[in-house]
Amino acid sequence: MPVTSTSSQPQSSSKPKLSIKKVLIANRGEIAVRVARACRELGVRSVAIYSEADRYALHVKKADESHCLGSDPLQGYLSPHQIVNLAVETGCDALHPGYGFLSENAELAEICAQRGVKFIGPSADVIRQMGDKTEARNSAKRASVPVTPGSEGNLRDLEHAVEVAAGIGYPVMLKATSGGGGRGIRRCNDEKDLRSNYQRVISEATKAFGRAEVFLEKCIVDPRHIEVQVLADAHGGVVHLYERDCSIQRRNQKLIELAPSPQLTNEQRHYVGELAVKVAREVGYENAGTVEFLLDHDGSFYFMEMNTRVQVEHTITEQITGIDIVKTQIRIAAGEPLPFLQADISYRGFAAQFRINAEDPKNGFLPSFGRISRYYSPGGPGVRTDAAIYTGYTIPPYYDSMCAKLIVWNLTWEDLLERAERALEDMQIYGIRTTIPYYREILRHPQFRAGDFNTGFVEAHPELINYSIKRRPESLAAALAAAVAAQAGM
Amino acid sequence: MPVTSTSSQPQSSSKPKLSIKKVLIANRGEIAVRVARACRELGVRSVAIYSEADRYALHVKKADESHCLGSDPLQGYLSPHQIVNLAVETGCDALHPGYGFLSENAELAEICAQRGVKFIGPSADVIRQMGDKTEARNSAKRASVPVTPGSEGNLRDLEHAVEVAAGIGYPVMLKATSGGGGRGIRRCNDEKDLRSNYQRVISEATKAFGRAEVFLEKCIVDPRHIEVQVLADAHGGVVHLYERDCSIQRRNQKLIELAPSPQLTNEQRHYVGELAVKVAREVGYENAGTVEFLLDHDGSFYFMEMNTRVQVEHTITEQITGIDIVKTQIRIAAGEPLPFLQADISYRGFAAQFRINAEDPKNGFLPSFGRISRYYSPGGPGVRTDAAIYTGYTIPPYYDSMCAKLIVWNLTWEDLLERAERALEDMQIYGIRTTIPYYREILRHPQFRAGDFNTGFVEAHPELINYSIKRRPESLAAALAAAVAAQAGM
Repeated sequence: MPVTSTSSQPQSSSKPKLSIKKVLIANRGEIAVRVARACRELGVRSVAIYSEADRYALHVKKADESHCLGSDPLQGYLSPHQIVNLAVETGCDALHPGYGFLSENAELAEICAQRGVKFIGPSADVIRQMGDKTEARNSAKRASVPVTPGSEGNLRDLEHAVEVAAGIGYPVMLKATSGGGGRGIRRCNDEKDLRSNYQRVISEATKAFGRAEVFLEKCIVDPRHIEVQVLADAHGGVVHLYERDCSIQRRNQKLIELAPSPQLTNEQRHYVGELAVKVAREVGYENAGTVEFLLDHDGSFYFMEMNTRVQVEHTITEQITGIDIVKTQIRIAAGEPLPFLQADISYRGFAAQFRINAEDPKNGFLPSFGRISRYYSPGGPGVRTDAAIYTGYTIPPYYDSMCAKLIVWNLTWEDLLERAERALEDMQIYGIRTTIPYYREILRHPQFRAGDFNTGFVEAHPELINYSIKRRPESLAAALAAAVAAQAGM
Repeated sequence: MPVTSTSSQPQSSSKPKLSIKKVLIANRGEIAVRVARACRELGVRSVAIYSEADRYALHVKKADESHCLGSDPLQGYLSPHQIVNLAVETGCDALHPGYGFLSENAELAEICAQRGVKFIGPSADVIRQMGDKTEARNSAKRASVPVTPGSEGNLRDLEHAVEVAAGIGYPVMLKATSGGGGRGIRRCNDEKDLRSNYQRVISEATKAFGRAEVFLEKCIVDPRHIEVQVLADAHGGVVHLYERDCSIQRRNQKLIELAPSPQLTNEQRHYVGELAVKVAREVGYENAGTVEFLLDHDGSFYFMEMNTRVQVEHTITEQITGIDIVKTQIRIAAGEPLPFLQADISYRGFAAQFRINAEDPKNGFLPSFGRISRYYSPGGPGVRTDAAIYTGYTIPPYYDSMCAKLIVWNLTWEDLLERAERALEDMQIYGIRTTIPYYREILRHPQFRAGDFNTGFVEAHPELINYSIKRRPESLAAALAAAVAAQAGM
């Protein structure tokens, strides 16, 4: 859309002001920074919340205001009433939940609605509906979207489970109905497995999600994880922004995400995009959401679940489509219609996101928290960082180990691989261990380079942690330290 | 170009290896870092050169090898023989000149050719031809590309100048034939001006460029500066990558560049792109180059000059087209054909580059060199930095004041403005003064926002330096300092 006018009238005056003026960011870390940046771009004020442990966190600095929610590292971030109270007290007319924490908690959306604070996400009813995995499966079925064979609804008891499993064939996945994020799931290879796991999953589900219901699904062995970003406004507009491939996972935690998937044909791409739009339409979805699918080896897609919030990996979809998903979330919540139709949305090139975790891959991926003595953010073309760290920052031990996201874009798959390797080397984090060297090994693996991988890749290649941490003789760290010392007259 | 293959054959094996294996980077600062990154992505080794003053410069760290060229801050970077000797000694088969320094020195290209080192740029003949402004004008004329009315060739003497000026009408520009980069140029509003400036420009030209020739052009008052990026391979392939608008200048030095220009219609865009390709074809151009035009108020384009090297502002063209210009330069020098035709090249969105200069705008833009006590590189969507600085680095006083480039992209012009303002705030450089707060004022100006500006904008708005440097109560600087102190137990 080139601006061809040479009129002296400022074009900005033509734009109507957003109905949302001030947003409470009910989160921490890089996603809270991301939301603060989106608010800044929209001219909307932002309010950060933080625990004592997060006093020096970057999200506190990047918001316009910040409020401490007490000394407990977690409680404040998990208290819907306290958070909405603060939103009302600070004059916020909207609340962004980020991901994790309370982002899929229907109660938070409900309290927001009661207190007149716009929840930036779908309605409490839709959150509840998609949070219940058997209800979500039923919604997909009503929309004529394929789901894996499984129990119709929740299991009555162990004998019911054994009967259903015999019907669909082993292996099966035993899943908590309220589960999510890779928790409350157990694979059962035979009846013995099922019998020994049944009570265990129920206990886990009760403990983690407060609900005991479980159900069964056929286990697709080593599928590809394909998910589709959707955006839906309050006026019936629903679009998809193409898919992401999140097959590179370790214990159900995504490590590297790609957009678009290097494993799909264009036909598959459009097909799965339409499936996602069907699910969103069926449940009357509003705002940004992600419909997750399993892709079987025979090319079948099966609906897995819908995440009713922004994803960690929304960034790579932004890179290929050019659309700012977080800003669009806020605009949708403000009642604006989507500014594009499906036909207006195109994608260009390939993007990859590397989740930079403060973990030591060589030591069982154990968390490696501590002080970051030096952080150098990579630059140059096609490189984006969404980070929660800075030089001198100490990562507190209470939260998720992901401390930064490195996002790389390039025009072709092969150019992407080249740039990703360069960017991973360019990025320098000293003082803690991170997953960076491990990702460099994955990048060099011929199967990864060929775009031929599935969710079994990480487990199938344990040798990839056998890298040696080599420093070039004149490493940046040493040289920079020398420079700083020299210049400080030390 | 989606990769749809699911074959287990690594695709990378299908790519032929580049004929260039090792590149000497004959430059410093951010462009040397940029070239080192491109080499890394291509799997090509890189060699940095540096003066004693640049021992701790970032480009030294980002290259695979580095060599000191002596204690004089400038001499090494300006010695073609010494540099090419080093290239030969270190086994480099190619040399990248960057911009500035020797990048448009035909002798360097010549010595490279003699010593069997591939010069990453056009031939010495073409550099010489385009470096001679009257020859360049003649080339454009031969290609049927309009030039401003002026003297046919160089002026014989002052009386010849007066006669030509009377013919084309005042104001006129008196220019050194070997000039460039805004030097050796004087505007003459009347005959008196011309008479008083004539000998002065000749003296300047002799001193700065070693040649006394001057010529005259009609002065287009307050034109727009529109330039077109071209790429040409050794096999007759020539394309343009659309235009950049560099009208925001101060004393002929570009400050903010935009791509595409918000001031052109699509018709003008394609027309001026084709003009640039005509010039490149006419002179048998090879590698990356830029054809600069003046756009008059009546919509006429006039050829101004051709820069036979990569430009500071190549970045914004990369952002809108997705093409890596520096990597393409190296591939062209290696004899590869362009991997795209004109019809394959599309642009998306708008990009802006802000030259972050270590200068104090409130103090006549005086250089503000010194130690950078803290540098925070901005992140999030649509933000790129090409910087030569890091926390703890001391900017030496011997070189250009530009220490970083902030590049911002977004899908529409208005979204670009929002993001640019956010990114300029997000970027934090402490310890020196920079042009960042000045750029924020320009961004807010209604004329700039309306896309209605020309090369007279900066001079017409001296009030834009009257900003107050406001720090938010809880500024990042203070908070970070506190954090570091607290965490260090101080």
